[in-house]
Amino acid sequence: MEYKFSNRISSLQPSLIREILKATSDPGVIPFAAGNPAPDAFPIEKISQITRDIFASDPIGALQYSITEGYPALRAACRDLVENHYGVPMAENELIIITGAQQGADLTCKALVNEGDTVICEDPSFIGCLNAFRSYGAKLVGIPMEEDGMDVAKLEYALKNHPNTKLIYTIPNFQNPSGITTSLKKRQEILRLAEKYGVMVMEDNPYGDLRFSGEAVPSIKSMDKNGHVVYVGSFSKILAPGLRVAFAVAPKPLIAKMTVGKQCADVHTTILTQMICERFLATCDLTAHIQKISDIYRKKCQLMIDCIDREFSPKVTHTNPEGGLFLWCTLPEGADMLDFCQRAVQAKVAVVPGVAFLADETTPCRSFRMNFSTPTDENIIKGVSILGKLTKELY
Amino acid sequence: MEYKFSNRISSLQPSLIREILKATSDPGVIPFAAGNPAPDAFPIEKISQITRDIFASDPIGALQYSITEGYPALRAACRDLVENHYGVPMAENELIIITGAQQGADLTCKALVNEGDTVICEDPSFIGCLNAFRSYGAKLVGIPMEEDGMDVAKLEYALKNHPNTKLIYTIPNFQNPSGITTSLKKRQEILRLAEKYGVMVMEDNPYGDLRFSGEAVPSIKSMDKNGHVVYVGSFSKILAPGLRVAFAVAPKPLIAKMTVGKQCADVHTTILTQMICERFLATCDLTAHIQKISDIYRKKCQLMIDCIDREFSPKVTHTNPEGGLFLWCTLPEGADMLDFCQRAVQAKVAVVPGVAFLADETTPCRSFRMNFSTPTDENIIKGVSILGKLTKELY
Repeated sequence: MEYKFSNRISSLQPSLIREILKATSDPGVIPFAAGNPAPDAFPIEKISQITRDIFASDPIGALQYSITEGYPALRAACRDLVENHYGVPMAENELIIITGAQQGADLTCKALVNEGDTVICEDPSFIGCLNAFRSYGAKLVGIPMEEDGMDVAKLEYALKNHPNTKLIYTIPNFQNPSGITTSLKKRQEILRLAEKYGVMVMEDNPYGDLRFSGEAVPSIKSMDKNGHVVYVGSFSKILAPGLRVAFAVAPKPLIAKMTVGKQCADVHTTILTQMICERFLATCDLTAHIQKISDIYRKKCQLMIDCIDREFSPKVTHTNPEGGLFLWCTLPEGADMLDFCQRAVQAKVAVVPGVAFLADETTPCRSFRMNFSTPTDENIIKGVSILGKLTKELY
Repeated sequence: MEYKFSNRISSLQPSLIREILKATSDPGVIPFAAGNPAPDAFPIEKISQITRDIFASDPIGALQYSITEGYPALRAACRDLVENHYGVPMAENELIIITGAQQGADLTCKALVNEGDTVICEDPSFIGCLNAFRSYGAKLVGIPMEEDGMDVAKLEYALKNHPNTKLIYTIPNFQNPSGITTSLKKRQEILRLAEKYGVMVMEDNPYGDLRFSGEAVPSIKSMDKNGHVVYVGSFSKILAPGLRVAFAVAPKPLIAKMTVGKQCADVHTTILTQMICERFLATCDLTAHIQKISDIYRKKCQLMIDCIDREFSPKVTHTNPEGGLFLWCTLPEGADMLDFCQRAVQAKVAVVPGVAFLADETTPCRSFRMNFSTPTDENIIKGVSILGKLTKELY
């Protein structure tokens, strides 16, 4: 049979990141292209013990169908966390448990965006969410990133020129892929513009807890008095991504629509892993655990930056993230970035070409993403040395 | 803020079943409205032991990100199962692990159906999948069910009159909600018509293994020589629904598109529960386990039918399913079915109004769905007795 696919899916290519991830399952390649949390950050013993307790105390609850909104005890715990830890007043908001933060992008877009509507995003931004928006036929408009977040003048210009904009998508902390943190002033400005132009903001915050230097900046959601923000948090980076448990906080009417969308998508998130997250919050010291992970990432990030500063051609620049998993390197003017990435893979080091993260993949781009959480320290030293030689040969 | 939701989500109401399920969390109501597998069908000890083994042998594998297509060992095991147990040749097909069978409907529709295209479904049919199709702006055309499946003359008429039909949706075994099994002849005819009119069939088979009487009928997918069928199987009914693990089998080009769609939807299905399913298939006797479950359901179904035949007004008819979880009762002509269902809930017995399962909810309907897997035997006897009194008072 000759297959005729839907317009939305025909326009989508497989995520370059997932394809590269598959390539990096080759154990001979140093995985700077991945986005995996460090395996030694997983609290394996605790999760294993918690799971034994769940099967001992409530096996049927762990295996039976549950409600779409999420495991009630986990929802309550997340509401507490969001209100007391992140300063989001929950009176006007509601919370839904979702299957990874990726589903937050999917459901937000499903609820708000018609085919042909505009979604404004940071440029570069997380390809997984950009593709989710594309899968609903959204038109993406990218706003260049500056050192402290989106260029807000260009954001307002885009809002003026695209009156059918429904959503501004931002990752304010240690952004994927750039590692950039949006300043308080720009967060306030993004919210002000969302209110002025009557659009919603999706604040995607998977990395926010993984701060290893500098001062925490209030979330946009914590300043949201008029119901313009969907906040998405996740257990993927602070606990483990294989669990596929995250949560979205938004005004009640929007969460009601996202719940209807989730009924259609997967009925509910795996209940066993929801219970694991709930038991972890109830019985473990989250602050101490996050401190431990942040220490791991601080050291790994510092090691990678030290190696880059020592080994790379000085013509290559890089960001200095205050947290998260990624940094962003930019080659000198005139450099062929895709050629560099291909040479890197041939030399057994995988990085992600920056172009993969752009709203319009035909925009010129001299940057690439490097991940410091997945590789071992030994591989960070070795991989950066290989890349460094390449940069010195070429630039 | 005044929220403006997308057209697709504005047209959707919360699933009546999910809402009723919430109502039935009141322990005082007898849950004939649910669709839960019987808790004593869960192999709790085995799953608990398997989970301990996973955390002992491969904890990082269970917690880390994985690939979108699914845990490789589970995919291999499911391919074996599908090829050797269900007679589906895998050479031209591919298999993807999905987050419950519900995601099979979501991804199939995402890949094939544009807004305004037609999806043909059995009438009545499973509301969860109908809503998934609606959430993509599909137009639903329902084909009345006969004792042996869809009225195929009306199916051909619909295909002729809706040239933008992209998908025929069928649950051939012990259909939800009717309990009807589609005959071999009609399965062949559905496939022939799909080929003739160049459309795809989604064969949703969550209940197929739960046969407790009669002879197994070959799947439509096993007869699919020309790549017209998406087959969806699930671990929800044979193992446990809270795991959220199912699989879809389809021609390779379609699975490639569904994989891209799944990247956007939830990246991958929870890895721990995928590993649980894989270990269950590898180390337990699936046939013996299914035999045990089927015995449970045979007894529960027979008990419910015996009670109905004894207690209900003879003017109320019911189907006699050969497997699955549901039977379908029809009130006499002139009866007000919604009024009956409301009186039932007031009398603390929940059933699902048949109208919830129709492509067009304004079609007249005198039927309701009853589930025999969730209630205890005691509650089956008590609940049918309460309903029986109602039927005798009213008809």
